[in-house]
Amino acid sequence: MKKETLVEKEKNRQDLGFGTKVTNRSARLIKGDGRFNIKRKGQSFYAWLNAYNRLITMSWGKFFSITFLFYTILNFIFGFIYVLIGVDNQHFTGMDLSSEYSRFWDSFFFSAQTLTTVGYGRIAPIGFAASFVASIESLLGLMLFALITGLLYGRFSRPNPRIIYSKNALISPYLDTKALMFRMVNERSNQLIKVEVSVIFTKIEEKNGQPSRRYYGLTLERNKVDFFPTNWTIVHPITEDSPLYNETEESLKAADAEFLISVQGTDDTFADMIHSRISYEYYEMVWGAKFRPMLDSDGDDSYLLDLDKIDEYDLVEMG
Amino acid sequence: MKKETLVEKEKNRQDLGFGTKVTNRSARLIKGDGRFNIKRKGQSFYAWLNAYNRLITMSWGKFFSITFLFYTILNFIFGFIYVLIGVDNQHFTGMDLSSEYSRFWDSFFFSAQTLTTVGYGRIAPIGFAASFVASIESLLGLMLFALITGLLYGRFSRPNPRIIYSKNALISPYLDTKALMFRMVNERSNQLIKVEVSVIFTKIEEKNGQPSRRYYGLTLERNKVDFFPTNWTIVHPITEDSPLYNETEESLKAADAEFLISVQGTDDTFADMIHSRISYEYYEMVWGAKFRPMLDSDGDDSYLLDLDKIDEYDLVEMG
Amino acid sequence: MKKETLVEKEKNRQDLGFGTKVTNRSARLIKGDGRFNIKRKGQSFYAWLNAYNRLITMSWGKFFSITFLFYTILNFIFGFIYVLIGVDNQHFTGMDLSSEYSRFWDSFFFSAQTLTTVGYGRIAPIGFAASFVASIESLLGLMLFALITGLLYGRFSRPNPRIIYSKNALISPYLDTKALMFRMVNERSNQLIKVEVSVIFTKIEEKNGQPSRRYYGLTLERNKVDFFPTNWTIVHPITEDSPLYNETEESLKAADAEFLISVQGTDDTFADMIHSRISYEYYEMVWGAKFRPMLDSDGDDSYLLDLDKIDEYDLVEMG
Amino acid sequence: MKKETLVEKEKNRQDLGFGTKVTNRSARLIKGDGRFNIKRKGQSFYAWLNAYNRLITMSWGKFFSITFLFYTILNFIFGFIYVLIGVDNQHFTGMDLSSEYSRFWDSFFFSAQTLTTVGYGRIAPIGFAASFVASIESLLGLMLFALITGLLYGRFSRPNPRIIYSKNALISPYLDTKALMFRMVNERSNQLIKVEVSVIFTKIEEKNGQPSRRYYGLTLERNKVDFFPTNWTIVHPITEDSPLYNETEESLKAADAEFLISVQGTDDTFADMIHSRISYEYYEMVWGAKFRPMLDSDGDDSYLLDLDKIDEYDLVEMG
Repeated sequence: MKKETLVEKEKNRQDLGFGTKVTNRSARLIKGDGRFNIKRKGQSFYAWLNAYNRLITMSWGKFFSITFLFYTILNFIFGFIYVLIGVDNQHFTGMDLSSEYSRFWDSFFFSAQTLTTVGYGRIAPIGFAASFVASIESLLGLMLFALITGLLYGRFSRPNPRIIYSKNALISPYLDTKALMFRMVNERSNQLIKVEVSVIFTKIEEKNGQPSRRYYGLTLERNKVDFFPTNWTIVHPITEDSPLYNETEESLKAADAEFLISVQGTDDTFADMIHSRISYEYYEMVWGAKFRPMLDSDGDDSYLLDLDKIDEYDLVEMG
Repeated sequence: MKKETLVEKEKNRQDLGFGTKVTNRSARLIKGDGRFNIKRKGQSFYAWLNAYNRLITMSWGKFFSITFLFYTILNFIFGFIYVLIGVDNQHFTGMDLSSEYSRFWDSFFFSAQTLTTVGYGRIAPIGFAASFVASIESLLGLMLFALITGLLYGRFSRPNPRIIYSKNALISPYLDTKALMFRMVNERSNQLIKVEVSVIFTKIEEKNGQPSRRYYGLTLERNKVDFFPTNWTIVHPITEDSPLYNETEESLKAADAEFLISVQGTDDTFADMIHSRISYEYYEMVWGAKFRPMLDSDGDDSYLLDLDKIDEYDLVEMG
Repeated sequence: MKKETLVEKEKNRQDLGFGTKVTNRSARLIKGDGRFNIKRKGQSFYAWLNAYNRLITMSWGKFFSITFLFYTILNFIFGFIYVLIGVDNQHFTGMDLSSEYSRFWDSFFFSAQTLTTVGYGRIAPIGFAASFVASIESLLGLMLFALITGLLYGRFSRPNPRIIYSKNALISPYLDTKALMFRMVNERSNQLIKVEVSVIFTKIEEKNGQPSRRYYGLTLERNKVDFFPTNWTIVHPITEDSPLYNETEESLKAADAEFLISVQGTDDTFADMIHSRISYEYYEMVWGAKFRPMLDSDGDDSYLLDLDKIDEYDLVEMG
Repeated sequence: MKKETLVEKEKNRQDLGFGTKVTNRSARLIKGDGRFNIKRKGQSFYAWLNAYNRLITMSWGKFFSITFLFYTILNFIFGFIYVLIGVDNQHFTGMDLSSEYSRFWDSFFFSAQTLTTVGYGRIAPIGFAASFVASIESLLGLMLFALITGLLYGRFSRPNPRIIYSKNALISPYLDTKALMFRMVNERSNQLIKVEVSVIFTKIEEKNGQPSRRYYGLTLERNKVDFFPTNWTIVHPITEDSPLYNETEESLKAADAEFLISVQGTDDTFADMIHSRISYEYYEMVWGAKFRPMLDSDGDDSYLLDLDKIDEYDLVEMG
């Protein structure tokens, strides 16, 4: 049954999609913002553009700048078209014909009034050509506005958790052994429920003299909570069957160790699934330390959670 | 194997994120509206503001007041800007220039006509400055309107169940023992399906002379129903392995007992997940009582569910 | 251990929320449109109104009629307000003042032009009062329009499967026994995936001389399919452990039997969960019949599914 | 127990909704775009139309063409209505009455200005009839615009993964046996998580001398990954209990073999579920080949995934 055994063994190997071939020892697998450290080559234009995704996830400043820029460019284009058609009394009423300058700007602002459908009417199209272009422009305006409506809704309604993680992962005393601990908290006041966390430990191992990246799922004291109203300290007890049992600060550094954290839950407001990722590199670990409590009572009637304390710990003697 | 045992034991401990350290005996864990009794300190401005969430969950009165206020303030601001630019014939047509008062209000209402894109045109901008500001204002108007569209849709489409719970939890006779019972009903006529309920019992226990809060999941007669067309009485049978087996009215009071209820289901209309929470404090329990039926037949053809009876019970002798 | 046994036994009882007390023998539990046959009493006004739900689920004809009616009423109200303010040259430009009739209708249509923000400007407000009311009305118009946008999107995007069920459930020969069969098909061409079905059999039983409604889950040959591209015949084999094993056409009639079907799946287009319900009463069963095939090949290159055949069966001899 | 055995046996049979009756040997079950190769007959008009679905899934070019066409047709219709009402000074201000031609086009563009609510006011309705039709048209315009807003949002926000599959499925050496392998990659840069894949192998078998289509689920080395940042090679090890164990290139061709692949995951941006399907026909398999790696390091700091290499393989000797 040697055949079966090899296949079965392979099945139990953890893999994160980076493969075991060590192409790059020093590159972090998960970046600080929770994204994977991968570049893509050979994407089609549309896959690269990924317009909706970009417009949804870019910063508000960038989003408004692009909107404003696009609005200005469109008005320049249509302004020129109206000038080309002719802004005299054959094609428009009310244009200021006193100078080239005034002709263009009146065309430009007529375009803006058409695109936004405000249509004051001081300037209005008369002939077929001007009326036709204006009717196209107002339709375009409506569709762009429809687009902006969708984008703004998409940006706002996007499940976008603000989970804060402790800056460091600690090796702390735990019952009669020690444990790997880090903690996290929901910065917002809305409820996250059914929160699950998984921790994968990855390091470089020698395999037949070749360096090879291996992945180990870590067993947690508790990997799911029904509610997440306060801070949650995630604990991996370092017992005899933990892959960390024989590791030291030095051995983790030598093996380029990284802890990959993945969190999933439900935002109570819209029942949206939320996801969050982070990783701790070996140099972000503190050996022999304990987190300070973050939760206190606030008078007689409620509890107080101090987010500023998330990173605070005390150094302790390890047994 | 003492080491393993301690770790394993810890794994089976229930925790709700409040920890076991009793910081506040009298504070309720879940408030009447289903929210946790926690305040946050040290939130970033954006996390505190949480604008989308607030605008979605605030009352309709507050939402419309804020909209109206914002509209008025914007018109004051743009009204002043137009007055600063100048409302004479160089910059605007049609302004009533007869008094300072009329100048300002014509500017103010021109702003309103621009922001809403109604643009009658009795007043219309002429020069560059006025036209430019007006074109910005109409774009702003469109974006605000896009925002309101999204917010209104978000407010309406938000899964917002109206589950009513009985005011009291009862200790009732049940088969040949007794049981903790409470009941709930969907006030609306739309269907909730795949409804699940979980009940956690929490009380203060002495541990090494220290008061410590402990949590126990309660086993239910039925914790999931496929449909929820009528009322549902949730039943925890108090058998020998129930954490309530040896409890009395007095012992629960002394231990500051609270029952934390969490309900989850699917709204059939949009297949939205819905969540609802409530808690019963020890003083909201009635010992020795039975709920009165809520469902009756309504003529020959259908059933009638009387929501007004949800809180009604009869006192009974306990065995 | 008698105590445990009673509690355990109760746990295994099926319940659909109608209870076991037979309040109404003849009333169907699930109506033809998949809704439960329950009326509610004592709902709060808002729960009864359930405005969003109603506006989303009503027919298109009703929806457009309500929209049009609301638009007309609003224009009457604002039209009257403008008449009350005064439509002379102090308050408006361009009103046709020739008759009472023309004054009102010009006010009415000015209102319509303001509410829709079309604002031609032939009629425009001058004084403070008229301008103020018009600025409120245009804001109101924008918000109503925002609402309609949301409602239309909600109506369109609502997961609303068109699953067709066979008119009858059949008792058919099946392998070396017989089986309860019915079939269903997705009328639309979009894909449903991960489709699950559950069948509950309910009948009246005598318990201590009292009629009592009991529920039995029926085991299916297959209760989940990954894809649902063609028709699906749901099969409950009537083996020795089936609750139908000793039933006859007469016994089902006497026991007021009903089969409650619940279907759940995912619409591939938006990955929306969809739900569908139906029930078969005993008089909708055909004993000794087999469904005719619905799927055939269409030339060499594809398959053809004939929806018109969904109800067709052939009578057969039962073994 | 012969009865039970037959029923049990039937339960374990895989079925994909195409049935076992071989109606069409040469027809592919899943087409290249992931849709099933089924036509429907007898759909109701609305199920056939499936307007929302079509408008959401059609190409952008087609969508904008339909929008523009619809806009033009509506303006023709309303333009004619205004001409019928009369475009003289009784009914409209500002119409160019110089020719039949100018009368129609002024009506046409007045319609466009009303439908888009731009309402310049150069042309404005005066009498009841014109005002009434215009007020209906502007309401219609708002509702159409609301519709377009919803459709654009639906089109953009639709979970629409760009998963690329290798052109061929390979039979490759694998540990001490061989395996069926194909690979896939997310063309976009946004993250897919919790990705699951299932593979069904279908072929024609003789059963009592009758050709019959059978389905077999294939066991995978790994059928679920938490993250999908790079390429994923799906592996079915051909061990003794694989339905492919005794198959050859010739036997698969003779049996008209097809491999049906179904992929499901979650898009991280909106936590949307995504689905993708593909199939490999026997003639899309390469016997004795190995995929070339796609992932490389990109300098010291990150990894590079070359999408152009997805189809590349090297021929190898099979053991």
